[in-house]
Amino acid sequence: MKLFEDAEFAARVARAKTKMEEIGVDVLLVASPANQFWLTGYDGWSFYTPQMVVVAADLEQPLWVGRAMDAVGAKFTVFMSHEHIIPYGDEYVASDERHPMEFLVEILKSRGWGARRIGVEMDDYYYTARWHAILTAGLPDATFIDAFLAVNRARMKKSDREIDYLMQAGEIAGRAMQATFDAARPGVRQCDAVAELYRVTTAGTPEHGGTFTCKPPNAMVGEYCSAPHLSWTDAPLKENEMFYVELGGCRHRYHAPLSRCLWLGKPPQAMLDLAEIIAEGLNAVLDTVKPGVVLEELAAAWTSVISRHGIEKDSRIGYPVGIGYPPTWGELTCSMRKGDRTVMEPNMTFHCIPALWMEDYGLVVSESFAVTETGARTFADFPRKLFHLG
Amino acid sequence: MKLFEDAEFAARVARAKTKMEEIGVDVLLVASPANQFWLTGYDGWSFYTPQMVVVAADLEQPLWVGRAMDAVGAKFTVFMSHEHIIPYGDEYVASDERHPMEFLVEILKSRGWGARRIGVEMDDYYYTARWHAILTAGLPDATFIDAFLAVNRARMKKSDREIDYLMQAGEIAGRAMQATFDAARPGVRQCDAVAELYRVTTAGTPEHGGTFTCKPPNAMVGEYCSAPHLSWTDAPLKENEMFYVELGGCRHRYHAPLSRCLWLGKPPQAMLDLAEIIAEGLNAVLDTVKPGVVLEELAAAWTSVISRHGIEKDSRIGYPVGIGYPPTWGELTCSMRKGDRTVMEPNMTFHCIPALWMEDYGLVVSESFAVTETGARTFADFPRKLFHLG
Repeated sequence: MKLFEDAEFAARVARAKTKMEEIGVDVLLVASPANQFWLTGYDGWSFYTPQMVVVAADLEQPLWVGRAMDAVGAKFTVFMSHEHIIPYGDEYVASDERHPMEFLVEILKSRGWGARRIGVEMDDYYYTARWHAILTAGLPDATFIDAFLAVNRARMKKSDREIDYLMQAGEIAGRAMQATFDAARPGVRQCDAVAELYRVTTAGTPEHGGTFTCKPPNAMVGEYCSAPHLSWTDAPLKENEMFYVELGGCRHRYHAPLSRCLWLGKPPQAMLDLAEIIAEGLNAVLDTVKPGVVLEELAAAWTSVISRHGIEKDSRIGYPVGIGYPPTWGELTCSMRKGDRTVMEPNMTFHCIPALWMEDYGLVVSESFAVTETGARTFADFPRKLFHLG
Repeated sequence: MKLFEDAEFAARVARAKTKMEEIGVDVLLVASPANQFWLTGYDGWSFYTPQMVVVAADLEQPLWVGRAMDAVGAKFTVFMSHEHIIPYGDEYVASDERHPMEFLVEILKSRGWGARRIGVEMDDYYYTARWHAILTAGLPDATFIDAFLAVNRARMKKSDREIDYLMQAGEIAGRAMQATFDAARPGVRQCDAVAELYRVTTAGTPEHGGTFTCKPPNAMVGEYCSAPHLSWTDAPLKENEMFYVELGGCRHRYHAPLSRCLWLGKPPQAMLDLAEIIAEGLNAVLDTVKPGVVLEELAAAWTSVISRHGIEKDSRIGYPVGIGYPPTWGELTCSMRKGDRTVMEPNMTFHCIPALWMEDYGLVVSESFAVTETGARTFADFPRKLFHLG
């Protein structure tokens, strides 16, 4: 099955080229695996060796440049005709003497792009300082322009097909959360409860199988819940502990994150009250969503609710979400927080995660959603509350 | 439970400082999450926002510099006294106006390191071109030295405790492979078989619970087996298809990879023969392992076996393995291939993965192992053959 029609890829490349024109770039070097996937369809866990997608204003389709053994996977997955797949030999891999960016320099020169305005993703995870040093040294006549986030911005508005995948991912996320909470009981090892989470995110639904997510769940228990990005252990769950879960469902690299907490017992009233405040704040955010609203208005909706209850929180409460490759499913382009004037448009997609980190525990209720003409459409359908056993 | 004694961390820092002296570095900026974990114990999925570990010749313990919300997780996991944890505020996260590296510049200046010889991991996945640009601009009196792989090299020889974790990871890997192959039958969806893989790698063994691996399994079926880094789908498995699995068991970030293939039926004789050649070649490699042997001798042992059978393969057949953060569990320091003169020492650890990619399918039998005085000690205990149903 093709994930997307060729016409959709062509439209994406056209959007990237529009961005390139806006920022004065003739040739765009795309290091981000998520952007590579979006532009070409290429999907393989091969980005631990250097690979690059090249979009040139004067070339209709992008080039994929990568390791020879991965050119096979490129042939299976890219929309371009196969002369756009340009492999380098294994002698470039993990070598002290040769670097794949030297190979890329020669490709760019041979195409007559050696003196052009070249856009690079300066702060992308996969665009290292050395890559940049080799490219700038090898192309002394080129002008390098920072194009970080240019493609990320181009992919913020999803197609209907992309939204379909995110809805499927959301259904998987909800099932996985349910299975995790069903398995979590005092005496069960934390890892055994999370094993259920992984079983279900991987199996998916009967209609839509699951796949790997680009990051593990943030699944913490007890005192670790006060730290947002730690992990489970193999200790048994204990009565009256908090089990904090931020997970993602995934379809074809499209991620729908979902977060909930389970209290392993009968929760103190103060904790139930706090969970209700978070849910109220999240609902206020979702009610504010519509095209034309700017992101700081969402943050204000949240702040207005929690400050009425005497709570302050200064970190951002959300970010745009979609295609995920490690280390994140965030699109990195903007944040739900004061000062962010990004305007919401239909089919933009976000994860709103208003967690509160207390001294001894953390509490969260999150939703990911698409912006529609009539408001927020959440990907999952799961109760917004603190779960508990008692 | 503490993963390692403070004395072990102190010894690691001392080894890093020795490397620093060798390459003429006063202050080492460590961007690699794997190196950060090895040096400090810090373990959190927080490296999607910039964080850095700083090792200075004139400071006993390293500094951890990261996002304020992750300083909590740092307190739980690092061996250093807590004044070595230096948080930056959320206003630095995903901001157009401020960058965490600007914060780091001020830290380095305030410590009197602004004119020192500063080592940076130029080609590390997490050391971006922009980080480097900000640091070099902000510290014009410093001398920047490429220290890529310096810490990776320092961590090649494992402690006995590290080997223990790798042996536990190997046991998990073997169990996961068995569970995957038990579940894989014609008519079962690929994703449902891989769901068993994930269930077992996450649950682990009764004694040692599992955790997430830094990369998904390379689990491909049918024609996708001819591409090394693609992924499973939700199509049902069919009779007489190849199911290729490279997976990892993981304990405390230490990964033991293991690869096998399952033929969903009675395999053609030629395929069985090829699997036997691979197993013979792998055995020849393992028999060659001992302290003092150089890596290209392992490659030669492999080549000697397959060339006797008229087969050529030019890509490397293995790499050092250990701590894994995305995108790889490889240590990146060397390769089992012609020309690599890295000398094996006791407690170095490797993954030997002599896969053969044919036109229509791929075949693999791999082992990860430690070098001991008496030879290779594999982490898993799993038959070296092509599995099949018929």
